[in-house]
Amino acid sequence: MERAILLIQCPDKKGIVAKVSEFVFRNDGNIINSDQYSTDPEGGRFFMRLEFSFDARQNHRRDLENGLAELARSLDARWEIHYSDTVMNMGILASKSDHCLVDLLYRRRSGELRVSVPFVASNHEDLRAVVEQHGIAFHYLPVKKETRHAQEQEILNLATGATDFLVLARYMQILSNEFLSAYPHDIINIHHSFLPSFKGANPYQQAYDRGVKLIGATAHYVSAELDEGPIIEQLVERVTHKENIEDLRRKGRNLEKLALANAIHAHLQHRIIRFKNKTIVFA
Amino acid sequence: MERAILLIQCPDKKGIVAKVSEFVFRNDGNIINSDQYSTDPEGGRFFMRLEFSFDARQNHRRDLENGLAELARSLDARWEIHYSDTVMNMGILASKSDHCLVDLLYRRRSGELRVSVPFVASNHEDLRAVVEQHGIAFHYLPVKKETRHAQEQEILNLATGATDFLVLARYMQILSNEFLSAYPHDIINIHHSFLPSFKGANPYQQAYDRGVKLIGATAHYVSAELDEGPIIEQLVERVTHKENIEDLRRKGRNLEKLALANAIHAHLQHRIIRFKNKTIVFA
Amino acid sequence: MERAILLIQCPDKKGIVAKVSEFVFRNDGNIINSDQYSTDPEGGRFFMRLEFSFDARQNHRRDLENGLAELARSLDARWEIHYSDTVMNMGILASKSDHCLVDLLYRRRSGELRVSVPFVASNHEDLRAVVEQHGIAFHYLPVKKETRHAQEQEILNLATGATDFLVLARYMQILSNEFLSAYPHDIINIHHSFLPSFKGANPYQQAYDRGVKLIGATAHYVSAELDEGPIIEQLVERVTHKENIEDLRRKGRNLEKLALANAIHAHLQHRIIRFKNKTIVFA
Amino acid sequence: MERAILLIQCPDKKGIVAKVSEFVFRNDGNIINSDQYSTDPEGGRFFMRLEFSFDARQNHRRDLENGLAELARSLDARWEIHYSDTVMNMGILASKSDHCLVDLLYRRRSGELRVSVPFVASNHEDLRAVVEQHGIAFHYLPVKKETRHAQEQEILNLATGATDFLVLARYMQILSNEFLSAYPHDIINIHHSFLPSFKGANPYQQAYDRGVKLIGATAHYVSAELDEGPIIEQLVERVTHKENIEDLRRKGRNLEKLALANAIHAHLQHRIIRFKNKTIVFA
Repeated sequence: MERAILLIQCPDKKGIVAKVSEFVFRNDGNIINSDQYSTDPEGGRFFMRLEFSFDARQNHRRDLENGLAELARSLDARWEIHYSDTVMNMGILASKSDHCLVDLLYRRRSGELRVSVPFVASNHEDLRAVVEQHGIAFHYLPVKKETRHAQEQEILNLATGATDFLVLARYMQILSNEFLSAYPHDIINIHHSFLPSFKGANPYQQAYDRGVKLIGATAHYVSAELDEGPIIEQLVERVTHKENIEDLRRKGRNLEKLALANAIHAHLQHRIIRFKNKTIVFA
Repeated sequence: MERAILLIQCPDKKGIVAKVSEFVFRNDGNIINSDQYSTDPEGGRFFMRLEFSFDARQNHRRDLENGLAELARSLDARWEIHYSDTVMNMGILASKSDHCLVDLLYRRRSGELRVSVPFVASNHEDLRAVVEQHGIAFHYLPVKKETRHAQEQEILNLATGATDFLVLARYMQILSNEFLSAYPHDIINIHHSFLPSFKGANPYQQAYDRGVKLIGATAHYVSAELDEGPIIEQLVERVTHKENIEDLRRKGRNLEKLALANAIHAHLQHRIIRFKNKTIVFA
Repeated sequence: MERAILLIQCPDKKGIVAKVSEFVFRNDGNIINSDQYSTDPEGGRFFMRLEFSFDARQNHRRDLENGLAELARSLDARWEIHYSDTVMNMGILASKSDHCLVDLLYRRRSGELRVSVPFVASNHEDLRAVVEQHGIAFHYLPVKKETRHAQEQEILNLATGATDFLVLARYMQILSNEFLSAYPHDIINIHHSFLPSFKGANPYQQAYDRGVKLIGATAHYVSAELDEGPIIEQLVERVTHKENIEDLRRKGRNLEKLALANAIHAHLQHRIIRFKNKTIVFA
Repeated sequence: MERAILLIQCPDKKGIVAKVSEFVFRNDGNIINSDQYSTDPEGGRFFMRLEFSFDARQNHRRDLENGLAELARSLDARWEIHYSDTVMNMGILASKSDHCLVDLLYRRRSGELRVSVPFVASNHEDLRAVVEQHGIAFHYLPVKKETRHAQEQEILNLATGATDFLVLARYMQILSNEFLSAYPHDIINIHHSFLPSFKGANPYQQAYDRGVKLIGATAHYVSAELDEGPIIEQLVERVTHKENIEDLRRKGRNLEKLALANAIHAHLQHRIIRFKNKTIVFA
């Protein structure tokens, strides 16, 4: 028995659930989990995530995918299928802060995040030891204004082909639109504020100056506009006037680690569909 | 166009989603929302909530229900269907505390809870004015040990037929097993602790004495064992050593009101399926 | 025995706590609670809240206050003293939404908020019945662009002298800077977003469009810049892609009610000191 | 300039704050932070935490402590003083689970927890590598029923003298009352439930079976009665019917790590006073 996850989106109309579930049944699949969402029940957009098991011998993947392609054409649908024996490849970019990176590497090693990490690249040397301790390749790719293009090209060379998505684990450089266009997959970033509050640099200082009573962290897909991409996960925690910026940073690191880990967990389980500038995150 | 909600549970096996959604499609229904859950994908129990619209003229309810009965037989399923034009009747039992009662009556009046309240009954006179202000019948049904049976019989006479479910809005009497057997529908209670901690009397005093750092409230269906019924909703809030019992009560009232309102909201939308001593609450 | 609360702020230096607590002791007072905060232990600003009981006969308030004035001069301090037998007067401005208003009136009637409400004024007639049911004067003060000045003058006439502070319970008008200058006390507003996100109009729509995973509410003191005043309390709750704007509003109302009630509770207990654009809220 | 933290508890009476703060002032100290709490303002027990800086040259510690001893006698007070240049020694006991251990070692290495770890002892070999990677001594102390006494004696030999407190980082053995009597300092445990719910073994299974809607973790001081010691910190997170026991464990690990880290953070900053079976945790 093999497991697959099907993600599908199309214009909403009658009978989609019936058609898709009937297709799975006809291919001798057993639905383990299904979830759907329509932006508007009367003529909006339809999204579905379907997890099912099927007999790997009889139903060859190719047959299944051919059938799906045909079904999708009839529904004017975009779709993707993922098989549970596939381990995704996650490239990581970092700078000097290690809390998110160490947390992710630990969750990978412990098996909580079922993911392969082909490399960690950083514009600083500081994190080499902790990365290599995990048996992972570390690439030091320093950058200054005039070398940005070349450095991003190096990242692209590393990442293209070898990765299914990238994670910015407190990578303190802004990726150019050229890079975002050239890299073909999703990029997940952790921003250390409760977006859309406190975009840009130094969000804890901004939060402290504004005197907010809750601080937050936001994991989101990177888009061309800084800190404006589709939000995946947000967490907050109370702070009081007694807490200085260092306290905010300490509490914030806990939020950053967890928000990023939750977002990656959902991404690895193919629970997320992007639509316009928002995400559907199936529970 | 009419809307219906179908709840179904049965032994899990291949093809259930296909069969049910195909049935809706065949009856010219449009699925607005569907959610399912299996206790165990390999041979457990299957639960489904399906919200769909259909043409009220062509698909007479009786035809739909006959078809469902037949489908259910083939799946060995228990099922219920609810139509969105039906307003449920919620009987309320209270004692002296009015915070949950006032909150529920307000949410009903504002239209947030789409529900009819045929009566409020209480073992004290205190709440008559606030109830009658809302144009709702108030029944004073005092009780002492030796009159319990007769008092419960009066509640039964009021509630049977006139109500679809009962809510105990801080009703400080324990309903007998006889009553629970005789009343044919669900009863929702709000317990002022984070169950299973602090069952029984005076949970805030218990919480204060134990020195917990979070207090809670729990909305649950009433079962024969006190404070042991299926949990629907739980909420908590931080407390510190500085807060005395009166502070805990004040914070707790906010939790009680909201946990109870959330539970009733889910119940009214037919989002809850009970199974053994637990609930499936579809989001 | 009488109780008093002393709030004091001054430049930080050695010995302030000793001087203030010694002053209370010398006046035969018993400190029930004291809390302090310094922006910077090495030469910042010092804030203190001191709750103490004293014998009302022997220590006449005038003597106490004269002594405090002298002490304050020596510390270059700003101070205020409040006696626990004083009930504050809270004027309320509202528009059409009644959830915050009803919630506040209930908390007042139940004794949870120990406050007097001399009037509710609104630019709409809708809320008259619910206000008068509580035995509180209702003033209908309609406003359009060209009558703003006159309408605000009417509010000022009602509020000056008769109130110790104002609450904007979802009052959908922006008070002019002239009004803010003329009204001598604090004004507390509830904004239906997690400030500084989604300032201005229609924050739930803004939140929905941005696809945030948490929505919030913020109680703050009103200042000349819209939605930029010192924050007192913030609350949030999770939302998912499944929830439409109406769901966000429903969840948001719970946050608004509670954030505003918490802020007023702290204000009535004189737990808040304003400093620049921030608040110190003593626990 | 040196910093000290003074913790004091005594029967409540007039003038304590004045006496203590005056003492600090007389010794040329500058109060950076003070917080107090009384169980009952009219004759209960008084608790105070005072953080102050003083000139290390002029005010020798011995003089300060002699003065404090005298002051304490006059107040019938228990007291302790801690100097900020002292780094505490934290011994760790663990078993096979590494999530709390790795988290603590990371927080120590990053400087977030300013603490020295003289050793980690475990009844299993599994965690040796990760401990030694941090340059910390690892002691494998296997135990079975008949060797418990001897094993605990080995722990005592390691810990007495070398540690200021012990942390049970998911140590799956119950320490005997003999051990608890013999070890002279505090022991902090992390229990993987929201105590007092689900004491004892397998709390996630218990939580799953009961169908709670929130799971939790509790950091507490160990006392002779299992899972009944004074609670320091509690955290919770929502779960739904969809989440199986493995999901609960995954979410729970995040709570365990953070609750334990928060508790140790407060302990290291001497923010906690134990009284009877409760804690005062100064913010």
